[in-house]
Amino acid sequence: SALSRFDVKGCFVATYTPMHHNGDINPDAVPRYAHHLLHNGAAGVFVNGTAGEGLMMTVAERKKMAEAWISCCKERIKIIVHCGALSLREAQELADHAQQKGADAISAVPSFYFSPRTPVDLVRNLKPIAAAAPKTPFLYYHIPRLTHVDIDMSSFLKAAKTEIPSLAGMKYSGFDVAGALKCYIDHGEEFEILWGRDDVMLSGLAVGFESFIGGSYSFTGAIAERIIKAFEAGDMSGALVEQKRLKRIMDLALGFGDQVTTFKALTSMVTIPLGPTRAPLKTFTSEETSTLRKALEKEGCFEWMAKAA
Amino acid sequence: SALSRFDVKGCFVATYTPMHHNGDINPDAVPRYAHHLLHNGAAGVFVNGTAGEGLMMTVAERKKMAEAWISCCKERIKIIVHCGALSLREAQELADHAQQKGADAISAVPSFYFSPRTPVDLVRNLKPIAAAAPKTPFLYYHIPRLTHVDIDMSSFLKAAKTEIPSLAGMKYSGFDVAGALKCYIDHGEEFEILWGRDDVMLSGLAVGFESFIGGSYSFTGAIAERIIKAFEAGDMSGALVEQKRLKRIMDLALGFGDQVTTFKALTSMVTIPLGPTRAPLKTFTSEETSTLRKALEKEGCFEWMAKAA
Amino acid sequence: SALSRFDVKGCFVATYTPMHHNGDINPDAVPRYAHHLLHNGAAGVFVNGTAGEGLMMTVAERKKMAEAWISCCKERIKIIVHCGALSLREAQELADHAQQKGADAISAVPSFYFSPRTPVDLVRNLKPIAAAAPKTPFLYYHIPRLTHVDIDMSSFLKAAKTEIPSLAGMKYSGFDVAGALKCYIDHGEEFEILWGRDDVMLSGLAVGFESFIGGSYSFTGAIAERIIKAFEAGDMSGALVEQKRLKRIMDLALGFGDQVTTFKALTSMVTIPLGPTRAPLKTFTSEETSTLRKALEKEGCFEWMAKAA
Amino acid sequence: SALSRFDVKGCFVATYTPMHHNGDINPDAVPRYAHHLLHNGAAGVFVNGTAGEGLMMTVAERKKMAEAWISCCKERIKIIVHCGALSLREAQELADHAQQKGADAISAVPSFYFSPRTPVDLVRNLKPIAAAAPKTPFLYYHIPRLTHVDIDMSSFLKAAKTEIPSLAGMKYSGFDVAGALKCYIDHGEEFEILWGRDDVMLSGLAVGFESFIGGSYSFTGAIAERIIKAFEAGDMSGALVEQKRLKRIMDLALGFGDQVTTFKALTSMVTIPLGPTRAPLKTFTSEETSTLRKALEKEGCFEWMAKAA
Repeated sequence: SALSRFDVKGCFVATYTPMHHNGDINPDAVPRYAHHLLHNGAAGVFVNGTAGEGLMMTVAERKKMAEAWISCCKERIKIIVHCGALSLREAQELADHAQQKGADAISAVPSFYFSPRTPVDLVRNLKPIAAAAPKTPFLYYHIPRLTHVDIDMSSFLKAAKTEIPSLAGMKYSGFDVAGALKCYIDHGEEFEILWGRDDVMLSGLAVGFESFIGGSYSFTGAIAERIIKAFEAGDMSGALVEQKRLKRIMDLALGFGDQVTTFKALTSMVTIPLGPTRAPLKTFTSEETSTLRKALEKEGCFEWMAKAA
Repeated sequence: SALSRFDVKGCFVATYTPMHHNGDINPDAVPRYAHHLLHNGAAGVFVNGTAGEGLMMTVAERKKMAEAWISCCKERIKIIVHCGALSLREAQELADHAQQKGADAISAVPSFYFSPRTPVDLVRNLKPIAAAAPKTPFLYYHIPRLTHVDIDMSSFLKAAKTEIPSLAGMKYSGFDVAGALKCYIDHGEEFEILWGRDDVMLSGLAVGFESFIGGSYSFTGAIAERIIKAFEAGDMSGALVEQKRLKRIMDLALGFGDQVTTFKALTSMVTIPLGPTRAPLKTFTSEETSTLRKALEKEGCFEWMAKAA
Repeated sequence: SALSRFDVKGCFVATYTPMHHNGDINPDAVPRYAHHLLHNGAAGVFVNGTAGEGLMMTVAERKKMAEAWISCCKERIKIIVHCGALSLREAQELADHAQQKGADAISAVPSFYFSPRTPVDLVRNLKPIAAAAPKTPFLYYHIPRLTHVDIDMSSFLKAAKTEIPSLAGMKYSGFDVAGALKCYIDHGEEFEILWGRDDVMLSGLAVGFESFIGGSYSFTGAIAERIIKAFEAGDMSGALVEQKRLKRIMDLALGFGDQVTTFKALTSMVTIPLGPTRAPLKTFTSEETSTLRKALEKEGCFEWMAKAA
Repeated sequence: SALSRFDVKGCFVATYTPMHHNGDINPDAVPRYAHHLLHNGAAGVFVNGTAGEGLMMTVAERKKMAEAWISCCKERIKIIVHCGALSLREAQELADHAQQKGADAISAVPSFYFSPRTPVDLVRNLKPIAAAAPKTPFLYYHIPRLTHVDIDMSSFLKAAKTEIPSLAGMKYSGFDVAGALKCYIDHGEEFEILWGRDDVMLSGLAVGFESFIGGSYSFTGAIAERIIKAFEAGDMSGALVEQKRLKRIMDLALGFGDQVTTFKALTSMVTIPLGPTRAPLKTFTSEETSTLRKALEKEGCFEWMAKAA
């Protein structure tokens, strides 16, 4: 079954895309960035997703970034390549490419200009993408805040089961935690549900989730690791201390701008310089970066983010 | 401070309103209904809220129901009376009445026809209600799914702190668990945040919540109690088994209709007959009730709901 | 049929509620206010609606205001009393009262806390209200921007036709003009559709509407009359000049606050003093009123609003 | 100023993209399709927009279709090429290409995954696209129903005026007709506002609009022409008869599926066969096509659509 093909545990990093000052992608920086992620215990990476500005990139750029991550991380950690696009033909091209290059899984948002409204609509929307990489596990990317596609995910899994043979589960990044739990109860045996909310990771652990995916793990990987360890040791208050720190770092950063811009800047501080974000996102000035750094220093956030020796 | 005035732990039941067959309220049934709730360990009741069809009732009816609950439960468990209304004058009348009769706290949705859009708007909206019962702790009732008022709650608490002296916290029934956690981190020392999502109660416990409020606890009180006990004993897998049961019961019931109608029918099965729901909600026929009962029996739900001897 | 019972043409004024400085209603001011409206050619009034802060008032207050308008205007112009409320029992009480007192029609928003989602839901929601005043034409009040009830109105009319015998049509205050036209094409023979957008009154005239209803006609009645006259004379460019003036006045006023507060203040300038708006709306200070007046004077708006001699 | 560079009157057809049975684009069919549009009085075409499934196509396909339309229609009617894309680099590539090939204007939806929330956000989003074709008039494409970008358009024009030198106006396809009128009053001297709602074209004419753009004009061009003529002759009732027909045809068709699929099928009936729509849209079977045709025949719609001899 699908599950056997993509049975994962641990934290997946939704990676940022390294860029030159002019906004061109910089795939050469991937190995050094990846080194930091591996050091902090990442179980895998989610490439060209929301954090990676995947939908802001051209098809050619997305292929280059996928290749960079696969050639660097293959066999060391799992690589999920996001292939969603408004044009399903482009999405298919990306899916086929990802499979050929050896991605461990692909993922996609639906084509959301002509928005799917029902589980059946959504299946029809995703089926061609999955079919373009039939040997590669497919994970639906559920992020209604950005796609405005807000369909009950348990019903979708039920409808998709027989229609999309490579379906392996989903990245659940909706606000509605109860909806994730429902997926888990109804389909957890069969499908992998990756918990997409780092800001309440512990809430996911508590209701049985074992795999996580998020944009903050580029810099909070060490904290996430401690949350999981404390949880597994039954030390809930210890886990909560760490969860509150993780959340506090996120909230502090978000006080300075949008999530991708601020988190990419923060990642640049603790890994390697990743360069600017691309329009339509705002570019962070060095002054803004410095203000963010000071705010984080003031509360001791960098100590929290550091891996214990 | 406000916190000292309403420091609560445990499960609050958002009660259903007992009604006669013609839809008239039946306050005489409260003591027998309350008996069941007390037996299942309720820490308190939330009266005339969403579950109680409070906004579907006349002012006179709401007063009668508040009186019935207070006279029955006062000094035994805490009583929160929901006083929100579109007309702030009616809300004030209800708040004043609740204080005079001895409610432990009042709560309110905002007047949401001319919807507040900012934290400052929301403060202006709620201030007159709180001021009508100045000696009674005030809990904001955050339920954006129904009020369409979706303001960042941490910002609201910050803005309300000095403006609403009796503010004690809130019932947080939003989908966005991370928003609840943010309130907790930013204001948890000062305000009581009651976790309003029974369907993921364990997610709340995990991130530090100690007080809960929900419409399902009328029939899942025993399960909720076991969730808390297991959690406190560090038995997360035990707690999860119970949480999944609680969620499964809710999902099963919701397959048959809207939440208030189905949950009221289910409560009638395990406590005392509470009668119909009122228009615009659909009335459950006895056939529909029977179908629901059988679906629950089939999966053993009634055994789950029973209190261990 | 319903149509025969409420065949109307011309402009209905959605009236503001005269209030004392403390926010108490002032029904005694109605005759003088009505005098101005009649002088400007109003075909009728819509009482206790959005403009009138009807949902912000208590049931007792709403009855008093309905009585004041009926006793003053009966047999002179048509009186529609808005009876919608979250509590259908209150709505029924108001509907029954309006019928007894002699309202020409009643109107209602649905009970929108437990929101209707389908035409059938909406029929079930409204049916009890209409049934409480079975001899009085019933007009649905469609204002999705405030009720968040956004159901296709043509489908609703189709579903309601046989279920609500007193249904006479609706006040259509949605943004979607094409939806109004669809109602008109599908059901215009049978139902009266009142055009609820004064800001594009001429767009309604152009597609066949003959009855209008809005909050601005308290002060733009003379302009509206000139729009209709020009239109009927085939003078589209003359009609457009007046429509642009009407819209300019509205936009200017809305630059200073919410619609009810600013329009009530403006109405006070050109009719009689109507007093403050009630919380949760902001109260306009005399300084704010003065700023608004100057802005309108500067562009010559008061000349536009004046009735030609 | 911008206006002088794109002063247009009349009806623009939002064209459908001719496709082979396998969903590949068929640019060779453009001349025969265009012949029909010219015959029915089209003032111009809007290529690769919503109707044209532009966002469902690859960059290479969009370029080929733009070329086909330009080479066929240049100097005969105006050609607007839609260049919007989630990736602004792709949008820029398309804008540059359109300018090089000689488009009369370009248009774009914003990059709407990271949605602009304010007029300033929107300006930042569009500026790079316009700058990639600096000598070509730029028209913002306002279609909030699909992009979920619902910013006040008059405020946007004010903010954009100095920032986007090539800004010439917009295609206004929002529901809110009053918002369009506001743009017209505030900025009509300076900017061209194309009325994007064929279903209420007459409402636009009435408030001063002179240029129209829509997906139905492929088959309702003759009706639209008669609406304009009647309007200009002061024959409002004649205009309304035609507007009701236009709307009736649209509503009838929409009863059978989504707008692009049904309207493309209908266009195939009255011009030349245009082939299927592309996933995620549903493909119309020949049986469904036949049912649609019969429904239209039954009411005489094809007679309405025919050009008078």
